Amino acid sequence: MQFEVVFTRKPELRSPVLIEGLPGIGHVGKIAARHMVRELRAKKFARLYSATFPPHVIIKKTGMIEEMKNEFYYWKAESEGQHDLIFVIGNTQSTSPEGQYLLCEKILDIAQEFGAREMFTLGGLGVGRAVDSPKVFGAVNHPRYIPILEERGVVVKRDGVGQIIGVSGMLLSQGKRRGIYGACLMGETSGFYVDPNSARAVLEVLTSILGVEISMEKLVKRVKDAARRVEEAAKLERKMMEDMGIIRREPTDDEMRYIG
Amino acid sequence: MQFEVVFTRKPELRSPVLIEGLPGIGHVGKIAARHMVRELRAKKFARLYSATFPPHVIIKKTGMIEEMKNEFYYWKAESEGQHDLIFVIGNTQSTSPEGQYLLCEKILDIAQEFGAREMFTLGGLGVGRAVDSPKVFGAVNHPRYIPILEERGVVVKRDGVGQIIGVSGMLLSQGKRRGIYGACLMGETSGFYVDPNSARAVLEVLTSILGVEISMEKLVKRVKDAARRVEEAAKLERKMMEDMGIIRREPTDDEMRYIG
Amino acid sequence: MQFEVVFTRKPELRSPVLIEGLPGIGHVGKIAARHMVRELRAKKFARLYSATFPPHVIIKKTGMIEEMKNEFYYWKAESEGQHDLIFVIGNTQSTSPEGQYLLCEKILDIAQEFGAREMFTLGGLGVGRAVDSPKVFGAVNHPRYIPILEERGVVVKRDGVGQIIGVSGMLLSQGKRRGIYGACLMGETSGFYVDPNSARAVLEVLTSILGVEISMEKLVKRVKDAARRVEEAAKLERKMMEDMGIIRREPTDDEMRYIG
Amino acid sequence: MQFEVVFTRKPELRSPVLIEGLPGIGHVGKIAARHMVRELRAKKFARLYSATFPPHVIIKKTGMIEEMKNEFYYWKAESEGQHDLIFVIGNTQSTSPEGQYLLCEKILDIAQEFGAREMFTLGGLGVGRAVDSPKVFGAVNHPRYIPILEERGVVVKRDGVGQIIGVSGMLLSQGKRRGIYGACLMGETSGFYVDPNSARAVLEVLTSILGVEISMEKLVKRVKDAARRVEEAAKLERKMMEDMGIIRREPTDDEMRYIG
Repeated sequence: MQFEVVFTRKPELRSPVLIEGLPGIGHVGKIAARHMVRELRAKKFARLYSATFPPHVIIKKTGMIEEMKNEFYYWKAESEGQHDLIFVIGNTQSTSPEGQYLLCEKILDIAQEFGAREMFTLGGLGVGRAVDSPKVFGAVNHPRYIPILEERGVVVKRDGVGQIIGVSGMLLSQGKRRGIYGACLMGETSGFYVDPNSARAVLEVLTSILGVEISMEKLVKRVKDAARRVEEAAKLERKMMEDMGIIRREPTDDEMRYIG
Repeated sequence: MQFEVVFTRKPELRSPVLIEGLPGIGHVGKIAARHMVRELRAKKFARLYSATFPPHVIIKKTGMIEEMKNEFYYWKAESEGQHDLIFVIGNTQSTSPEGQYLLCEKILDIAQEFGAREMFTLGGLGVGRAVDSPKVFGAVNHPRYIPILEERGVVVKRDGVGQIIGVSGMLLSQGKRRGIYGACLMGETSGFYVDPNSARAVLEVLTSILGVEISMEKLVKRVKDAARRVEEAAKLERKMMEDMGIIRREPTDDEMRYIG
Repeated sequence: MQFEVVFTRKPELRSPVLIEGLPGIGHVGKIAARHMVRELRAKKFARLYSATFPPHVIIKKTGMIEEMKNEFYYWKAESEGQHDLIFVIGNTQSTSPEGQYLLCEKILDIAQEFGAREMFTLGGLGVGRAVDSPKVFGAVNHPRYIPILEERGVVVKRDGVGQIIGVSGMLLSQGKRRGIYGACLMGETSGFYVDPNSARAVLEVLTSILGVEISMEKLVKRVKDAARRVEEAAKLERKMMEDMGIIRREPTDDEMRYIG
Repeated sequence: MQFEVVFTRKPELRSPVLIEGLPGIGHVGKIAARHMVRELRAKKFARLYSATFPPHVIIKKTGMIEEMKNEFYYWKAESEGQHDLIFVIGNTQSTSPEGQYLLCEKILDIAQEFGAREMFTLGGLGVGRAVDSPKVFGAVNHPRYIPILEERGVVVKRDGVGQIIGVSGMLLSQGKRRGIYGACLMGETSGFYVDPNSARAVLEVLTSILGVEISMEKLVKRVKDAARRVEEAAKLERKMMEDMGIIRREPTDDEMRYIG
């Protein structure tokens, strides 16, 4: 009753790797995963709805509503050394501790149904100040991923103890108990705005690990365009609000949004 | 256990259209739907109670308590081109994200049981300042409703992205998955007080779409009377509070009330 | 799993009247119901525990812990015109809207199991200032109780609309649907401290309705003693805290405690 | 669905005593129980995960994630007069009242499965100021523990009424209903920082009651080392944050952490 999964197809996959990019700090993980889904022309195969998602809907520019949801995409390996991939992306995480936990269980159920035994979760790590050349930080649920990350310049060892809030961390924790191992890749970001530059840094590590090549130029361009569009829209909307008032705006994909 | 539905009758309806008017910003949706129920002499056929409703009851002027509830009414088409109607109105929405989601499921279950495949949800859109000639904004869960709304002067396309909080938006989202399509009509309103004028603007659009004629004069009159009554009651009550103290007042129907 | 009821005996009762006195504003209902339980030497027959109660326990002066619980007592009528009585008293209400709703369902289940078809719920009505001669306010779930209350000086009709928060109101609402009718009696009280004087006013109305006589002097005395004890304890404790520090104090029965 | 228990072995135990040391004020209970587990070389036999735990994971210095969990250890008596012991320790309590209640039920289920009929829960009692020679306070769920505690200098009787928040109190309350009796030992502590000195005071009482001898010197040493390490780490981390920014730190075991 709390979760509803609708499959639109059931692809045959060989040991796919799960990639998670739900909304979080700086939208780093969401931007990265979505870019990869688009570049690889990954195919949607399932939608997940939940009573634990926020109790609202989004109105798009067209006037169509967009429901709160998570979506699953797959991509089939094209050459030796690559793995099939499953992506989970969407416009929200759950609104309660228990909702988050059960959401992770559902995501892992689906990943496991298609044979996934490995995962990478993507997110941002807020540092409270502008970052020009974002580092990528990593955390793992199996030691074998430490050298894989460190070879690619990811900062894994740290002074002191940290925390990963939300699905990106909980998937590692709950996945470990099912034998699904992997890492969380966190792009350094200010935490104040949407950060495609940080997403690019995360993607460079991820694609290197996966042996997949995707163009980053489109990401950079899309980011610039989006930034410009957001700015223009903000101006227009501010004007419109002065003229006639308007509904509370939902931050667009290109603006920062943090789901706690 | 969380929801209890009591049917007092089971009407035979032909493809009824669901109209939702639960409490929200400026009570716009609630006032509009209640006025329509009264003008059409729609008949009550079910009550819905829920453990997810707020944990209190209302004391009416008579000393009788009023339970927190939603109520269902029906109306049968009287001429060609009209549809049978189901109304859901009441004094509350749920208190939690999950409660809101499950409430929508229940409402849609009931609408579907009687054959509904279309819906209009009614609400207010707070703009933070007084509005003399309220616009009506719209959001849809199927593109075929966009021209239907725009022909009647409803603002559907927008700059930027918006949000509908609560049942009015979630019914569109959850209804879409069941093949129940329609629109949310939102009357422009300040958001600071109950706004029958905004309700009237919404009703003009809705009745035009439904091909139903109802007198708006009674709404205007009722509104004026109510406003006067509220003012008098407020004066009396303030005096009474000074004289002898009194319980915390529940905003009346004619005062603003926002259920988040 | 959320509620556990332990019966220590199952009395035979004839159409008992349910009396509720759980903690609330000024502890008015709790003091009133407890006094009546003691004066009538009512007998305990059940305890109710719940996962929805607050996640702590009370430490008594003896060092024994007191669990969060509700308790049921019964009393058998001693003369014509009296009814058997069931009391529900305790040290807490639930912590969530849903918990409150389900708690009321449990209480009504138990009352109904023993044949109750009538109830009186007891509480305080906070007026924000000291009250010397507290009025008693009433709300009913069946009009037949209005004259019964008004004959005894209870204020039933009001200017404007009020609200009863918590179990005292919800029992009326949920009881009505089961055919258990009655009233909520609310003693006028400041809302700032425990108010046995208000409890006395409520008890005078209630005992008159029930045709039961109990001594109020003991209540007045107990109240005075308690007030003195509280003051002394507060002094001692403050001294002790200065001397060596001490745990956070739980307001005692004779101090104000409000469970939202 | 809300709780998952994984047994790694099922030891044969004779009437074990349950010792609880989950995180709380000043980490007093956690430090005490963990020290005892280490000194006695108690063996892990079960892990408990829950959807009611906080929705995050901890990143350790190595880059490995640590899941939110409770763990069960056992120790077998080595001489006459000793009891077998079961320890429950971990890095969290639940996030909701209902979660806390159900967590206690699970812990008691496990303790009972292995025959436990006695328990000691360990915690801190915050007094808001530095404490050099911490007193130990006690609360019991059966009067027979009062002399056992008082003989060892524990303060059991008190002026006024107190409260134990969380699992340490609820286990006593819920255990009592199953016939599992015992006491909560609370070490006096400031409440502002992690307090191994208070943990030592609690352990001295507990080991005396259980007839078990463990070295306290290692605790003192570990505490000093940890304090030094924490200080150094804090310096380094502060420097690192200035240099390049870093994730929000999770308080380490040796820093104060309060789970409400």
